[in-house]
Amino acid sequence: MMERAVIGIDLGATRIKAGLVRGERIVGTVVVNLNPADRGQEGIVRRLAAVVEELRAKFLEPGEQPAGIGIGSPGAIRHATGVIVRAPNFAEWSDFELGRMLSEATGLETRLDNDANVITLGEAVYGAGRGMRDFLCLTLGSGLGGGLFLDGAIYRGADGMAGELGHIGVEPEGFPCNCGSRGCIEQYVAAVGIRNYVARDRLFGDDTPAALADPDLPRRLYQMCRDGHPVAVKYFHDVGYYLAMGIGTFLNLLNVEAVILGGGLARSFDAFGPTMREELHRRAYPVLVERTSIVLCELWEDAGILGAAALLNPKP
Amino acid sequence: MMERAVIGIDLGATRIKAGLVRGERIVGTVVVNLNPADRGQEGIVRRLAAVVEELRAKFLEPGEQPAGIGIGSPGAIRHATGVIVRAPNFAEWSDFELGRMLSEATGLETRLDNDANVITLGEAVYGAGRGMRDFLCLTLGSGLGGGLFLDGAIYRGADGMAGELGHIGVEPEGFPCNCGSRGCIEQYVAAVGIRNYVARDRLFGDDTPAALADPDLPRRLYQMCRDGHPVAVKYFHDVGYYLAMGIGTFLNLLNVEAVILGGGLARSFDAFGPTMREELHRRAYPVLVERTSIVLCELWEDAGILGAAALLNPKP
Repeated sequence: MMERAVIGIDLGATRIKAGLVRGERIVGTVVVNLNPADRGQEGIVRRLAAVVEELRAKFLEPGEQPAGIGIGSPGAIRHATGVIVRAPNFAEWSDFELGRMLSEATGLETRLDNDANVITLGEAVYGAGRGMRDFLCLTLGSGLGGGLFLDGAIYRGADGMAGELGHIGVEPEGFPCNCGSRGCIEQYVAAVGIRNYVARDRLFGDDTPAALADPDLPRRLYQMCRDGHPVAVKYFHDVGYYLAMGIGTFLNLLNVEAVILGGGLARSFDAFGPTMREELHRRAYPVLVERTSIVLCELWEDAGILGAAALLNPKP
Repeated sequence: MMERAVIGIDLGATRIKAGLVRGERIVGTVVVNLNPADRGQEGIVRRLAAVVEELRAKFLEPGEQPAGIGIGSPGAIRHATGVIVRAPNFAEWSDFELGRMLSEATGLETRLDNDANVITLGEAVYGAGRGMRDFLCLTLGSGLGGGLFLDGAIYRGADGMAGELGHIGVEPEGFPCNCGSRGCIEQYVAAVGIRNYVARDRLFGDDTPAALADPDLPRRLYQMCRDGHPVAVKYFHDVGYYLAMGIGTFLNLLNVEAVILGGGLARSFDAFGPTMREELHRRAYPVLVERTSIVLCELWEDAGILGAAALLNPKP
């Protein structure tokens, strides 16, 4: 028997990435860029409904009904009610009842969670966290995101705001963070860390502002590191050092089975991984370091769609 | 109808504190000091069984059976099987099947957990955490202990070792910690923090070693702080500052309803609390700081016995 289809949607600031998922496989995808006119609540629902319609028309069997829609979205989400409480940079999305609205527009059950939790859930159901009861997922993207999978389920906290793994303090008076604090781990790892180091050192002299504006800057530094440029080597060393400090805190606090690393900068693991592993042995209880797997994610670019689809799983 | 009696035991390195608990009340207690000869596995079980017998004889109704025995113990505990895996400073306690042995000696169901979890459970069932689903408990004693109460239960992690709240890093290259790391928050707050500051500054000149040997040193510094001694004021300021850094990390990570502060140094709250509250507003997401209660514990010295008794509760 063919497994029931689910629609998984990765809703981003500028793009909708949606896929039809059957079993563990993405059968087909639809990607839509959003222009500013689409970004109001009604506009987003209209675009999402059209994407759902397109997926059904293209990839479903005649007469087949998907089990529902899962969505990962930026911002603070009330998972239980499918409401976006607020999203950074989108004033229009405050108290956005996306779950209810899209369900009414499509006739399909719709579940919602924030993008970091969705990625974590994807790894739990389809990826490197399969079969695990306790792990955490760290996404080294432009910033440092993440999710907590504890006692067999996403841990969301009292208001659904748990899991701000990027905003634990590692330098008492360190780089200012856009969360309002300073010295958050996010400012020392991920792409933002690399950018902070480059800016602090004015690494490219007068060309530094232009370099910082280049979205490819972290990859450029990675290449320099691979080529043996000592400053770039030091930067990735520092990424590994602070990551170990943060992971040490997570292990001592949460005693998880695994830490799963994803996101663009995790592809530079060879540059920061050795420092991270060595330093971690000096940071957390040895018994915890030894029993915890630190592994790369398995889903990479598919995590958003597969994780969103996993929201429709009966468990968790 | 009279509520069923439970025996709660606070097992320490040098002392057994046991009580008969009925409803929310400690009906009577027995305290026994341990001498080195008692500290082997057989010796401990014999002393505990005698204490249980004494409680039954003194405080139970004729013919009455208690529901069971709960024990809080130092060390790494396997809660599910009632085994002390290892305990600091007690080589004899490795793989100590205390739960089974005491159950056989007394004929009563015996449950076991580590002392920090037991204190947390006590506050959940009888104290400041009553009715809460998510909170954490910080015990500012000689070190910084604590427990996590998440989704309505003690969170123990993959091996029962979660909740090492004192061993999150707050200074990358700070004071060495006896866990093997350095810059752990424990080294900056609680009594050990005060001692570190005094030792670093040689505060009492040539008398510093003698002052450090005094178990009452933290209270002495608290009195100096109350008297306006600027260095002592600064020490408690620093306790509040680092405590805020740690609590900020906990809030951003776990989005709990409350942080409950207990332990001897929490009685100096007026000396470090104002700095802690002010600094916390700069450390964690404002919405999290505003929604989280930071409160003193309610059980204080009774937490060990009541929390141990709470292990016999059907929930959690």
